[in-house]
Amino acid sequence: MKAEIIAVGTEILTGQILNTNAQFLSEKLAELGIDVYFQTAVGDNHERLLSVLEIASGRSDLVVLCGGLGPTDDDLTKQTLAQFLARDLVTDPQASQKLDNFFAQRPASSRTPNNDRQAQLVAGSQALANPNGLAVGGMLTVNQVTYVVLPGPPSELKAMVQEELLPRLSPQGRLYSRVLRFFGIGESRLVTILDDVIKQQTDPTLAPYAKTGEVTLRLSTKASDESLAQAKLDALEQLILSRERLADYFYGYGEDHSLAKEVADLLKTREQTLAAAESLTAGLFQSSLAQFSGASSYLVGGFVAYSMAAKANLLEIPLQDLEEHGVVSAFTAEKMAEQARLKLGTSLGVSLTGVAGPDSLEGQPLGRVYIGIANAQQTRSYQVDIGKRSRQDIRQIAVLHALDLVRRTLLSP
Amino acid sequence: MKAEIIAVGTEILTGQILNTNAQFLSEKLAELGIDVYFQTAVGDNHERLLSVLEIASGRSDLVVLCGGLGPTDDDLTKQTLAQFLARDLVTDPQASQKLDNFFAQRPASSRTPNNDRQAQLVAGSQALANPNGLAVGGMLTVNQVTYVVLPGPPSELKAMVQEELLPRLSPQGRLYSRVLRFFGIGESRLVTILDDVIKQQTDPTLAPYAKTGEVTLRLSTKASDESLAQAKLDALEQLILSRERLADYFYGYGEDHSLAKEVADLLKTREQTLAAAESLTAGLFQSSLAQFSGASSYLVGGFVAYSMAAKANLLEIPLQDLEEHGVVSAFTAEKMAEQARLKLGTSLGVSLTGVAGPDSLEGQPLGRVYIGIANAQQTRSYQVDIGKRSRQDIRQIAVLHALDLVRRTLLSP
Repeated sequence: MKAEIIAVGTEILTGQILNTNAQFLSEKLAELGIDVYFQTAVGDNHERLLSVLEIASGRSDLVVLCGGLGPTDDDLTKQTLAQFLARDLVTDPQASQKLDNFFAQRPASSRTPNNDRQAQLVAGSQALANPNGLAVGGMLTVNQVTYVVLPGPPSELKAMVQEELLPRLSPQGRLYSRVLRFFGIGESRLVTILDDVIKQQTDPTLAPYAKTGEVTLRLSTKASDESLAQAKLDALEQLILSRERLADYFYGYGEDHSLAKEVADLLKTREQTLAAAESLTAGLFQSSLAQFSGASSYLVGGFVAYSMAAKANLLEIPLQDLEEHGVVSAFTAEKMAEQARLKLGTSLGVSLTGVAGPDSLEGQPLGRVYIGIANAQQTRSYQVDIGKRSRQDIRQIAVLHALDLVRRTLLSP
Repeated sequence: MKAEIIAVGTEILTGQILNTNAQFLSEKLAELGIDVYFQTAVGDNHERLLSVLEIASGRSDLVVLCGGLGPTDDDLTKQTLAQFLARDLVTDPQASQKLDNFFAQRPASSRTPNNDRQAQLVAGSQALANPNGLAVGGMLTVNQVTYVVLPGPPSELKAMVQEELLPRLSPQGRLYSRVLRFFGIGESRLVTILDDVIKQQTDPTLAPYAKTGEVTLRLSTKASDESLAQAKLDALEQLILSRERLADYFYGYGEDHSLAKEVADLLKTREQTLAAAESLTAGLFQSSLAQFSGASSYLVGGFVAYSMAAKANLLEIPLQDLEEHGVVSAFTAEKMAEQARLKLGTSLGVSLTGVAGPDSLEGQPLGRVYIGIANAQQTRSYQVDIGKRSRQDIRQIAVLHALDLVRRTLLSP
């Protein structure tokens, strides 16, 4: 099956937004064994979208359109597709009901006639429900070409693709993938360790991918049989994790997994509670653990101790000690972790203090962070040097190091 | 001038990499007043790239190709363009010299015949030197269509575009833009209020764009003279902000601006300090204010009071009061803000407590949030109903409401 993706939106062509939808869709279609041959972006312009539909219908079996389903006049994807296919637009009763409910709950928002367009479909389409928004999606086949219409906002598009679209596209020799997640090792080091494997490996294939502070490896194989595929993936995974210290950097599976999720799950299953005291990260660590439902079972609370006075007053660390050791020090990190734990009565106390920049602090270099961790038995601290990076990167990577430290502490016998 | 961008690379079509080059090029061309009407991505495939060139040459005056200039067999952009234009490939002497120097300095690397392809150009092209790599770029005009060939790696492409390409593309009346930012009003409501303006407006143009909890309006005009452009943008801005309560929702200018930045700047210039106590947002509000360098001048610190016990112990709010009023209540929000301010000795205290979901809490619906704000004169609280959204959206939008409340408090006489 030959597929192509058409993103509709002038903001893409002016460079205001990055076309992340095309990447997401390509990845998901590849997982089903559907080859994407073209991606196109076109503006909110009726004639040009028509010309793109003309080209696509002549060369592809599956044409996935995204964007342009909103309530404004420049949203014209469904209208243009309807004209191209010489069909009417009809109202989807469920999407219309959703609009009614939405505005009934918000008496202050005024519904406009344009909103009703969000509930419309090209006649003959199967409706694709929108779990995160008001615009309904659709799917229909005309002259052997299947057209899919999806909303532009990534949170809406992703949910609709996962829950509504993928189950409807029959697998063509399915692609089975497994994502291994690593923290504490850089991409180039990982690739060097696995150089021969990456070069020789054809099935399953192996693709490294770097994110801020993390690396993932995607193992993929096409197969008609699930158990065969899993056996191949198992063998390659074993080979990878036997190399040097890679098993030690490996922390979990899956595209949507994260260190924060891993730690949240561990805290839950081990029935541990956590308190924190944060300086440079100013709440980012605690907030990362509050992302998940049921967070109240492990996250009690803690402190943002940004100024030296806050460290002294909130955490009751003697000002003289802070001045003597410095706020960016192993001493201060340990005291912060201990005091957070004691004041909240939790099993674990965690702290972060360091130099987010742009300038150095107390003679400590940019990117130096001390992370403290306390439990009933002991208090420890670790120095991490993240180096010259942006303020945002330093704060985010510091949070990952703190999460990894909690993970290792929970896993240690 | 009608332009289009063609990215060549199978990794884009499989979703392994994001097509950031297209965004960068679109933005740079827009700055020169060149309209990009299409972006296409195609794989490392001779026939399909030929078909894409056929389409592009028929509808555009400027065709910018990027990617596929490397030394491997699947890099075929120049070869395919040469065939399409029925021209030979010739060697660029400077690029060839660069290759010689590169391998002379690296005796360990072995040069392959494929490397020589990196120094080739379609006959008749102007060479575009590559400041960060070995593959030379090119530019030539055939039958009134200008073709540009650029390397795929973003660091090479960006440098070549800035240093070599943009100076060669003569400005066609530069594009001047201004972005107005609004909080507290939805996109469809904004568009309804401005319906006639959007419909009648041709110069400057007006484009609305929605982000999580925010809306921006981009005003753009092409002009040869900056002061003329600014006068046109001023007039349209005045018209927009005179409509209904739009001036009240408007908070600032610029693509890279944010409510958090606006509040940080206000706190700095007014020499105010802030403390916070957060429940559902668990540090996200404080962290958003710690993004900016110099945050220590206004952000002292505060509390993450996730559990009821943390609210009672850290903030010393009597447990009995919390149980009586509920943790999601105006009473609790006000007490949290007051206590945060008193305990940190700041000019302002801010609090957030609410239902992030997925379930309702204390009989309060999903998305209900109380935000408290205290200063030396008074303590107030506001109920915000964000509605049924994801946990992440509710927490993020709650932070935006809290930031907006601080902004309004700082601006009120």
